[in-house]
Amino acid sequence: MNTLKNDRYLKALLRQPVDLTPVWMMRQAGRYLPEYRELRKQAGSFMDLCQNPALACEVTLQPARRFPIDAAILFSDILTIPDAMGLGLYFAEGEGPKFEKPIRTGSDVKNLFVPDVADKLSYVTDAVSLIRKELAGDIPLIGFSGSPWTLATYMVEGGSSKDFRHIKAMLFDKPELLHQMLDVLAKSVIAYLNAQIESGAQSVMIFDTWGGVLTPRDYKLFSLSYMAQIVAGLKRENEGMRVPVTLFTKNGGQWLEAIADSGCDAVGVDWTTDLADARARVGDKVALQGNMDPSVLYASESRIREEVETILSSFGSGNGHVFNLGHGIHQFVEPEKAGCFVDAVHELSRPYHP
Amino acid sequence: MNTLKNDRYLKALLRQPVDLTPVWMMRQAGRYLPEYRELRKQAGSFMDLCQNPALACEVTLQPARRFPIDAAILFSDILTIPDAMGLGLYFAEGEGPKFEKPIRTGSDVKNLFVPDVADKLSYVTDAVSLIRKELAGDIPLIGFSGSPWTLATYMVEGGSSKDFRHIKAMLFDKPELLHQMLDVLAKSVIAYLNAQIESGAQSVMIFDTWGGVLTPRDYKLFSLSYMAQIVAGLKRENEGMRVPVTLFTKNGGQWLEAIADSGCDAVGVDWTTDLADARARVGDKVALQGNMDPSVLYASESRIREEVETILSSFGSGNGHVFNLGHGIHQFVEPEKAGCFVDAVHELSRPYHP
Repeated sequence: MNTLKNDRYLKALLRQPVDLTPVWMMRQAGRYLPEYRELRKQAGSFMDLCQNPALACEVTLQPARRFPIDAAILFSDILTIPDAMGLGLYFAEGEGPKFEKPIRTGSDVKNLFVPDVADKLSYVTDAVSLIRKELAGDIPLIGFSGSPWTLATYMVEGGSSKDFRHIKAMLFDKPELLHQMLDVLAKSVIAYLNAQIESGAQSVMIFDTWGGVLTPRDYKLFSLSYMAQIVAGLKRENEGMRVPVTLFTKNGGQWLEAIADSGCDAVGVDWTTDLADARARVGDKVALQGNMDPSVLYASESRIREEVETILSSFGSGNGHVFNLGHGIHQFVEPEKAGCFVDAVHELSRPYHP
Repeated sequence: MNTLKNDRYLKALLRQPVDLTPVWMMRQAGRYLPEYRELRKQAGSFMDLCQNPALACEVTLQPARRFPIDAAILFSDILTIPDAMGLGLYFAEGEGPKFEKPIRTGSDVKNLFVPDVADKLSYVTDAVSLIRKELAGDIPLIGFSGSPWTLATYMVEGGSSKDFRHIKAMLFDKPELLHQMLDVLAKSVIAYLNAQIESGAQSVMIFDTWGGVLTPRDYKLFSLSYMAQIVAGLKRENEGMRVPVTLFTKNGGQWLEAIADSGCDAVGVDWTTDLADARARVGDKVALQGNMDPSVLYASESRIREEVETILSSFGSGNGHVFNLGHGIHQFVEPEKAGCFVDAVHELSRPYHP
């Protein structure tokens, strides 16, 4: 049953009328907030923070205490699934995530398995339950996962990459091996997101950070098809409410029509696509989420308001817009600028919902 | 007068009939070649190599000795112009290019000037003359420059960047300052490319590596408009021959129509756009250059041939295709794979030129 005090975000995802355009920020719980940096220092490592449900809950709630955002998003790492598969996730200072055991050979892939979420990832579902309780129905909670392709890039490269050398060699020369891996990952993401939904996530989002490095053909074969498989396998209703699914491929602006055909409820759009064009292309199939360049938050408050207005007018009147940044908020942004952004969306969007 | 033994590349850029699809590779003179690494070791620094016309000539010719490529491209750095403006270019080991004096303030911008090419950049024009002589009419020579926006990103950030924090703050808050800077850069690029043309470059290309990080509006205002200004200011005929101009914006696949309207002869396309779509969108306005993912060169020879065939058939029959990679060749590619690629384009393209 819907006991939400603010359900703008869920309504907009389902293209239902709202009073104001809802807004949240990708990576809204993070390093740009001094209270996050403080807690991070106390917690020890980044993974210690993710794996402690009380701390993950606290971090999730921090931006909601500062800003009138319309949704909270679970604080967690994108690589929890491969970690639960035993790849040994660790963070080398200043180098980003790494895996002790990257996946390179046929036998590496054969040894992959769908992790038991209740056993290996209970720290995530516990955090979800706790956050839901603490939110007390104020705003909805978003669960999330990386896309199979995006998870696979880290697993095969052993960490972040610039040229995706190893996974692309696999894609071109041993596509059946990569498909085998993506299939295990898709099943894992389904189990993982369904567990988040059952624990209380009221909407879920799949982040395809690296789908945009593929050709159009390969994007459909190796990334989108697995996201579509996930969408089809998700529990789309819980507590008597529809659970909307958002897909976001960074640099996927050329493929919005195909993404909108995946069965998802909403498509995330980065700032390299005009929202008016995006809307014309996807029609009434899905809601759109986006799409301010996060770097606008380095600008003055008046410039931030101007850009918010430009994007609101670009989407235009009518239902189906969730305002967001086109990528995660940067660590050097002043929190006041994030506040200005959220307020501007609410204030300036009123005329678009007559 | 045209004394070229192989003019396929120039003809294809002008959408004239050719016997085979011409091919060259972005960054074809570079680290993946052992003979390059050997010369680089002898030369001292990377800039020593660029600033010595004899060595720059030698490096330019290396790939042409190995592979039957249809064009050579001047070996030089993308940042010679800001270096000539006195910003103090240096290369920190493993960190890429850096500037001692980044451009941040109004007075920094006011002090910028169009460098005297004959004085400060004669090492480039001397290299061009020498290469032309050494090529002896076998294949044409391509000159190049970075786009004003791309040069500005390095100048304002002080080097490579992930989030373009400083230049975007300037773009959003002090657009007039950025325009002032881009205007000096556009004039500098015109002088620089015209000097290359007068020294013997038979075609020129503008690399807009970072245009793709902008919104569609800002791309047109801050990158494309300055490239169009350059195109309009270039000497388009020399030695009785048309000098074709190619524009390439990495991740610019969404804006091909606008790029094709700039007055250029050809548009570079990366692998995230299907060449059949690209051709349908630009029509008869321009030739297209591209677009194999350079990572395909990590795959087997049969897979490379397969991808070449896919791209040839995607462009289809008719004039106006220069085959290339969608970005520079990676340093870990085996030279034999590059050879296989070049041969495959020639062999497999014959049926497309009946």
